Amino acid sequence: GVLGSGDFARSLAVRLVRSGFRVVVGSRNPKRKASLFPAAAEVTFQAEAVKKADVIFVAIFREHYSTLCDLADVLVGKILVDVSNNTEINHHKESNAEYLASLFPACTVVKAFNVVSAWTLQSGARDGNKQVLICSNNQEAKHTIAEIAQVMGFTPVDMGCMSSACEIENIPLRLLPAWKIPIFLALGLFLCFFTYNLIRQVIHPYIREQKNKLYKIPIEVVNTTLPCVSYVMLSLVYLPGVLAACSQLYYGTKYRRFPDWLDQWLQHRKQIGLLSFFCAALHAVYSLCLPMRRSHRYLLIETAVKQAMEKKMTVWVEEEVWRMEIYISVGIIALGLLSLLAITSLPSIANSLNWREFSFIQ
Amino acid sequence: GVLGSGDFARSLAVRLVRSGFRVVVGSRNPKRKASLFPAAAEVTFQAEAVKKADVIFVAIFREHYSTLCDLADVLVGKILVDVSNNTEINHHKESNAEYLASLFPACTVVKAFNVVSAWTLQSGARDGNKQVLICSNNQEAKHTIAEIAQVMGFTPVDMGCMSSACEIENIPLRLLPAWKIPIFLALGLFLCFFTYNLIRQVIHPYIREQKNKLYKIPIEVVNTTLPCVSYVMLSLVYLPGVLAACSQLYYGTKYRRFPDWLDQWLQHRKQIGLLSFFCAALHAVYSLCLPMRRSHRYLLIETAVKQAMEKKMTVWVEEEVWRMEIYISVGIIALGLLSLLAITSLPSIANSLNWREFSFIQ
Amino acid sequence: GVLGSGDFARSLAVRLVRSGFRVVVGSRNPKRKASLFPAAAEVTFQAEAVKKADVIFVAIFREHYSTLCDLADVLVGKILVDVSNNTEINHHKESNAEYLASLFPACTVVKAFNVVSAWTLQSGARDGNKQVLICSNNQEAKHTIAEIAQVMGFTPVDMGCMSSACEIENIPLRLLPAWKIPIFLALGLFLCFFTYNLIRQVIHPYIREQKNKLYKIPIEVVNTTLPCVSYVMLSLVYLPGVLAACSQLYYGTKYRRFPDWLDQWLQHRKQIGLLSFFCAALHAVYSLCLPMRRSHRYLLIETAVKQAMEKKMTVWVEEEVWRMEIYISVGIIALGLLSLLAITSLPSIANSLNWREFSFIQ
Repeated sequence: GVLGSGDFARSLAVRLVRSGFRVVVGSRNPKRKASLFPAAAEVTFQAEAVKKADVIFVAIFREHYSTLCDLADVLVGKILVDVSNNTEINHHKESNAEYLASLFPACTVVKAFNVVSAWTLQSGARDGNKQVLICSNNQEAKHTIAEIAQVMGFTPVDMGCMSSACEIENIPLRLLPAWKIPIFLALGLFLCFFTYNLIRQVIHPYIREQKNKLYKIPIEVVNTTLPCVSYVMLSLVYLPGVLAACSQLYYGTKYRRFPDWLDQWLQHRKQIGLLSFFCAALHAVYSLCLPMRRSHRYLLIETAVKQAMEKKMTVWVEEEVWRMEIYISVGIIALGLLSLLAITSLPSIANSLNWREFSFIQ
Repeated sequence: GVLGSGDFARSLAVRLVRSGFRVVVGSRNPKRKASLFPAAAEVTFQAEAVKKADVIFVAIFREHYSTLCDLADVLVGKILVDVSNNTEINHHKESNAEYLASLFPACTVVKAFNVVSAWTLQSGARDGNKQVLICSNNQEAKHTIAEIAQVMGFTPVDMGCMSSACEIENIPLRLLPAWKIPIFLALGLFLCFFTYNLIRQVIHPYIREQKNKLYKIPIEVVNTTLPCVSYVMLSLVYLPGVLAACSQLYYGTKYRRFPDWLDQWLQHRKQIGLLSFFCAALHAVYSLCLPMRRSHRYLLIETAVKQAMEKKMTVWVEEEVWRMEIYISVGIIALGLLSLLAITSLPSIANSLNWREFSFIQ
Repeated sequence: GVLGSGDFARSLAVRLVRSGFRVVVGSRNPKRKASLFPAAAEVTFQAEAVKKADVIFVAIFREHYSTLCDLADVLVGKILVDVSNNTEINHHKESNAEYLASLFPACTVVKAFNVVSAWTLQSGARDGNKQVLICSNNQEAKHTIAEIAQVMGFTPVDMGCMSSACEIENIPLRLLPAWKIPIFLALGLFLCFFTYNLIRQVIHPYIREQKNKLYKIPIEVVNTTLPCVSYVMLSLVYLPGVLAACSQLYYGTKYRRFPDWLDQWLQHRKQIGLLSFFCAALHAVYSLCLPMRRSHRYLLIETAVKQAMEKKMTVWVEEEVWRMEIYISVGIIALGLLSLLAITSLPSIANSLNWREFSFIQ
């Protein structure tokens, strides 16, 4: 049974019908709404729909939950599936599912399917996240809904009892929350260092020697900026650990909560580290592209021609040679090690390591 | 208990014995077959084996299931594990496990272990897939088999009730079905563009100016072909979404199924996108290799010598310089963004994103 | 309830309190120890604590388990959670959890939380492994503990019945055991080939022609060493399969165990293969860096100047050109294929392939 006639209710009905379930839709105005639903779904009045179904998806807004109170008698003993989402994180004091459960104490309420979009429901779980997070205080009801999700092509994930509902309802609202601060940090650092390098490599030579070095902006200036960003980000990964240790030494206990800013910082270390790796990898690619450029080619030919005209055979500067060999060699080793770190942060790799192995690699 | 004496039955017996289970094998000719099984497994007549065991692995072909009907009496109440596979996808109307269940209504049938090869069973789950997909209508029986799989070193995966059996039986038969069309598409596009570039870069200069440019085939021609393939493939990822939107606008509803060809296309987008990324990455590596080649070196030296002999100091062409700097710079950014897309298509990353985050990144 | 007052007991209490549980701590000297625990946790005598709690975490050493025997009466019917670890792999004949269960047959013993470090407990599961492995002979108790782990922010993983306890207790003690032999192998091979290449490319020219080629050590010598290591490692991946097949042919059966050394070798193939890929990838990066070096630049200019002074226009050697084009082209293709192999060895990818697809790709 599906209660409601919105976008989600219709997609849900489409998917259930396609997965081979018999679907009955409860609407206040079944005649007008029937055309919106697939032909195989029976559209009828709410009370009648509820009577015919054992599992009822409540696809209406939290604000209208109370309108269902008239159906309280027919709902006794049924499984109600709360699929609702909020528009803001922690909008209400109690989660929608818990609110529904408090309205209908004689029903078994299961929170599920809210993390799936109407589009995914309608078109089937093609790519991306196929997980359907489920929680309920009733094991059997949870199990029934998990089986339904399975048949519909999703991967049910048991999230435990009803107290997880709030967390589950917040999930569809987040948009990479852990990445926001690190990304703005990286952009800010990039801008600072870019300005500095632009002045140093392009504007300064132009003012002092009237040399036009504007061509350096897209590659060379960016390429000297990236490793600076990467270095600072990498140090920001390891700094909070040191600060935390200092704070523990200062207070003489390991069991005191860190101040909020330090706690936040500790929690963003992984993202900062990955952005640091991303900058380092881009720096590697930029550096490798340097000899491909026309400017590199022209400068080389010009030097050769100049040398030939001055009849100078030797251009070899041992110190310069060694400096470059060592730069490159150390750079490659650093990139190799950072790659290992980045790979171990993949969820499926991290889960196969115990904490000793993880901290050993870190 | 294991019924059957084929390759799979023997590997199963070996594994069960090594995992510490007591194994009894039922055979029609126990004397002749006993030597095939590990010494620790007791080989006896079918009826006797069934009597001694609570869990019975039916390792015989579907065609011979009916021969077990004589044992119907002793099988009552036992758990039968159907491990069989078919030779063709959807070969029979009902799955083997459901067929077995219909023959023995007094038994509990569990579908399991069919996705594991005899070789993996025998040698232990070393690498690759350790999952054993299990389905049954009886929770307890499913649980028992899951525990056995766990002890044998596999990862049991609950696939819900018996109606999933058909799907589970089809899994070992598929060979990257989602990749076939995209790979042939990529190969076709590669051939077309390769021919075009070969004519343009090698054959045409040869005919017109008698210049031998054959050395360009292995790297330069391939390198100009790869980005063309990558571009076309990338556009083929986003085109079906546009077509689907148009079809929805035309029919005025989101709840109409798309035509089959569009549906197929929509389902292959991920694979087409990954192949597009693979071509782009190869193009990057090829491009980076260009300055390493002898031909690059020789052309450079020849230009320098020519310039020196003509006493021309200036070779700098500002326009050429800028064009190359911008090409490379845009190329690196595009590759960086495609890498992010490719990483989010890893199953373990995709599962940690909600659909808003996923579609934001896409 | 938590029994014990060590580091782990305190972290556990902190985490439980923060997750909203009521915690009672049992100690022999509650007055002295109370200050170590969070204020919200009640610290009292052991017997009293046990009476007040249904789930009791036994956070004391195995050696002191017997001291709890006085509490046997009050412990009847309670769930005991064994969180202990050993200091050596397979230190005792029976696992700590099984030993605890044998001491208190009237209790339900669950093994859990031992794979989590005190630090992770205290600071919350931030990154790395969030899994809590749980095993018990009692389904309901296991389920209760799983729910608690869920609320604490961990991912409970059902490891089956008590016989898995030994395996679970060994997990925190291992430190990448499968990688030790392959890494030493790679280092050994690297050293051998490095010495050989050092003699050939640096020491020999110095002795014979007094040429100082020391600058080649950091990049060129390493770069000729890496593919040798990679090749040998790659062959070591496929050799044991051939040996195993030969052994099977020789003994005329597939059902005989391989000798131990071959078995060990077969089990390390994945790690050897990944190290081979790592060396190949490093070789690719080193090679791509070659034209970036000063030495490359100087040699090029010197050749150009020499040619210009000798008025020689032609430097083109068709054979050299072709050799290099083919080297690079084959190298890129090999790296592309090895990358595919490496990607399919990611756990989340490997789990989405059936064994036919996996062996097809391999």
